[in-house]
Amino acid sequence: MKAAYYKEEEIKKVLNEKLAFSLAKKVFWLISQKKTAMPPKIYLNLPRLSKGAPGDFRAMPAYIGGMGNGVCGIKWVSVFPSNPRLNLPTVIATILLNSKKTGALLAIFEGNHITAMRTGAAAAVATHTLANPKPHKLSIIGAGFQAEYQLHAMTNLYAFDEIGVWGFVKGESRRFCERLSGEHLSLRPYEDIKSCVLSADIIVTCTPSRRPLLKKE
Amino acid sequence: MKAAYYKEEEIKKVLNEKLAFSLAKKVFWLISQKKTAMPPKIYLNLPRLSKGAPGDFRAMPAYIGGMGNGVCGIKWVSVFPSNPRLNLPTVIATILLNSKKTGALLAIFEGNHITAMRTGAAAAVATHTLANPKPHKLSIIGAGFQAEYQLHAMTNLYAFDEIGVWGFVKGESRRFCERLSGEHLSLRPYEDIKSCVLSADIIVTCTPSRRPLLKKE
Repeated sequence: MKAAYYKEEEIKKVLNEKLAFSLAKKVFWLISQKKTAMPPKIYLNLPRLSKGAPGDFRAMPAYIGGMGNGVCGIKWVSVFPSNPRLNLPTVIATILLNSKKTGALLAIFEGNHITAMRTGAAAAVATHTLANPKPHKLSIIGAGFQAEYQLHAMTNLYAFDEIGVWGFVKGESRRFCERLSGEHLSLRPYEDIKSCVLSADIIVTCTPSRRPLLKKE
Repeated sequence: MKAAYYKEEEIKKVLNEKLAFSLAKKVFWLISQKKTAMPPKIYLNLPRLSKGAPGDFRAMPAYIGGMGNGVCGIKWVSVFPSNPRLNLPTVIATILLNSKKTGALLAIFEGNHITAMRTGAAAAVATHTLANPKPHKLSIIGAGFQAEYQLHAMTNLYAFDEIGVWGFVKGESRRFCERLSGEHLSLRPYEDIKSCVLSADIIVTCTPSRRPLLKKE
């Protein structure tokens, strides 16, 4: 039996912020009930192995009990930071879903939208649980692919008076705000990270930076 | 771009013992040259997690340098020993192949034939390298799915005068030999493991037994 194959477009039709939020919330609860398992991921570090290979892969198997009959499978995801130069996404993910009764492969998902939605939803669940329940200003540090998902995940929860955006590359935050201002009128680009986070109730960081961009003062 | 999907039937048309042997030999050589990488596999042990789940999964990422531009990907394989009762194979494998330049998914393979062929070929390469170059008698301990692949891998290398087969379940070795005797006239079933291995030049064991079946006497 050939497994079902779900393309990105089909997944986008059904997986929205509301569904991602409720699923992420449920799964966090199941984790606290010890009904899930996610062994430490394995890295396949290509740059160490092969000259000229600019990225690596991660294998992430998981089991979720307590949802229907239980769900198991794996995400196999690559991170190639130089991909945007080739007009390809940095992160490319494939998700396999299997029967927990026989091991048979049930479905294959193109996993980029799911990955981005899940990341946004995880931040939204944490924020909803921990943050001030009536926030006025959201600040987003980073104006790339994931920033848009974070924006949607947060505006699904709250009506902000202002959403400040700061990007590492000059002009990036302005382009981000112009592109998305039709949906989110309160978007405001900042060229200076300090003013961006000033008086923010919630700060979302989504940059791949390995050095601190924000400092407590 | 949708990745190519290769079904078992298509793979069987192109992957035979000769090709599997030459590929396995080449890859063993590349391993000795440190041109490959295979991080320790991750287990997703379902029986520990979920009552009634009778099997587990293994995630096996790998990179092979020195073949074309380099090959990378993962095998995701389940082992459910109770599957034969449901007329399903014990081992069910899916293999994903990715670009080492961008991480993009290139192809999805149903992996059962590849897994069985590779296992047979690995034993054949080891035997060809280490065993007596003119063997007369082969003994196969175990008469299940993998036994047939081992038989084909070995008879691809040598013309045996006799091939003895012993199976754990009574009558299993007789049925195995009857089914395959058209191709291999020298097949002979044994009901007694000791006589089966007597005067054998090569002994192949392919049983999932966790206790010793053969003892040095």
